[in-house]
Amino acid sequence: MAQFMDVHHGMRGITADQLHQAHEADLAVEKDESVHFERAWADPESGTVYCLSEAPSADAVQRVHERAGHRADEIHAVPLAV
Amino acid sequence: MAQFMDVHHGMRGITADQLHQAHEADLAVEKDESVHFERAWADPESGTVYCLSEAPSADAVQRVHERAGHRADEIHAVPLAV
Repeated sequence: MAQFMDVHHGMRGITADQLHQAHEADLAVEKDESVHFERAWADPESGTVYCLSEAPSADAVQRVHERAGHRADEIHAVPLAV
Repeated sequence: MAQFMDVHHGMRGITADQLHQAHEADLAVEKDESVHFERAWADPESGTVYCLSEAPSADAVQRVHERAGHRADEIHAVPLAV
């Protein structure tokens, strides 16, 4: 298992409710891929969303996001953290 | 106070020690700007570093990073989080 940071662009105007619902949609299907979405942060002004997850691979992260209806634009393994 | 996610590019090959030292350099000066750097994650392969902070403004975040020797390429307010 490794940590990943993924990024979604084009989410301008996202609300707290929408972020919450998107996160819940991930949580609802993540177990099938052994992924866990830990946190997410959103900047409604630039339309950027960052998601931090623990997962077996970037592909597994993307599969969960796709099934939840919001494909990520970038997925980075982040093996280093402080 | 608000939360910010900032991004550094061009950090390919960054090591755990380098990330730790960069974070310590931020912590050493952050109080002057009422900023607190909470977490940071690095992808040595793409050379991307993400920093999560609490700060009065994006400018304050940048001033700390500049004094610590590593200007951010992007700084996003992230008022929404889960």
